[in-house]
Amino acid sequence: MTEFHTYETNGQAIYDESFATIRREANLGRFTKDEEVVAVRMIHAAGMVGLEEHVVFSDGMAKAARAALAAGAPILCDAYMVSEGITRPRLAANNEVICTLRDERVPGMAKEMGNTRSAAALELWRDKLEGSVVAIGNAPTALFHLLNMLKDPSCPRPAAIIGCPVGFVGAMESKDALMEDLPVPSMIVKGRLGGSAITVAAVNALASWKE
Amino acid sequence: MTEFHTYETNGQAIYDESFATIRREANLGRFTKDEEVVAVRMIHAAGMVGLEEHVVFSDGMAKAARAALAAGAPILCDAYMVSEGITRPRLAANNEVICTLRDERVPGMAKEMGNTRSAAALELWRDKLEGSVVAIGNAPTALFHLLNMLKDPSCPRPAAIIGCPVGFVGAMESKDALMEDLPVPSMIVKGRLGGSAITVAAVNALASWKE
Repeated sequence: MTEFHTYETNGQAIYDESFATIRREANLGRFTKDEEVVAVRMIHAAGMVGLEEHVVFSDGMAKAARAALAAGAPILCDAYMVSEGITRPRLAANNEVICTLRDERVPGMAKEMGNTRSAAALELWRDKLEGSVVAIGNAPTALFHLLNMLKDPSCPRPAAIIGCPVGFVGAMESKDALMEDLPVPSMIVKGRLGGSAITVAAVNALASWKE
Repeated sequence: MTEFHTYETNGQAIYDESFATIRREANLGRFTKDEEVVAVRMIHAAGMVGLEEHVVFSDGMAKAARAALAAGAPILCDAYMVSEGITRPRLAANNEVICTLRDERVPGMAKEMGNTRSAAALELWRDKLEGSVVAIGNAPTALFHLLNMLKDPSCPRPAAIIGCPVGFVGAMESKDALMEDLPVPSMIVKGRLGGSAITVAAVNALASWKE
């Protein structure tokens, strides 16, 4: 007789047990309540207790990002894996979720700028940037380019930046630069770790308290 | 005077340096050449040397998946973050990339099955399953349900399964079950680690040798 696998099939029960496990195992004591739920969801997305050691919020970032999202801030993403992952029902203000990477102007702009398409795509954010929440989960060049755009005092200011590019070249450096410049309230995952899943988790946690 | 950040802006140079760093730091000796490039790209996506310790291929999986993709196998994904991340120009046979999670039938099917939407969505894969490459990067329930579908000898067989669901409830167990059942050539990341970025990296590496 065939033995079928048995397993937990209730989505909410899976979330509840996952989040309880994370809260049992992770070192969350240094986070405010606003930050803690974000760190927990990021650990959940990565499947990695210990990630919290690398998560850094500037003072008030979580509150600022929540307020902006609640007020309808657009969410500007550097990659489609980020924009696709954001759970639309968690966006109470039906916020726009924007990724400009596949805009037909981007390849030409990248060539002209001598930069990556990920960086060039941000030039198309300018008219949405004021008061937005920026979610960079892939490209260090995008985060570096954003910081250089914000060196210009006339560049519109986002309400908050989630800076979680991943990898081995520029990721650590771009995130350190973000926290040093701190043009607006920001959060990062220090070092090489980061990526779209972690970034999406941060947006989803800041958009809604629902677990 | 404003100091702009300077950083590597050449995409290919960033890849080259990243992959060289990974090959210097990671323990890749136990992989075949077919597997090594997959493990390297997965480490790259995760920003995590050490991930390779958890990567397991069944004998011949990498070859089987490459052959299937080269021959035009559809790629069946459990989440849009997976299907969106797959780099289309790497698919030499213009392979279909399919995610059925948002099909309007799924919520009703999930309710009837008493399972998650992620698991229910796989029932809509049946007519594409034969010879496909399956990429599960999110939901343990999807992987468990696939294994139960494949208990039926009349269920069509994929050519290969990439089983990398992530998290704290069922992820480890579903991946262990995949390698124990081994219905077709398969690969996993053991334990809690996994996720869409790592899964996409595996697909992209199996689709093209280009680094």
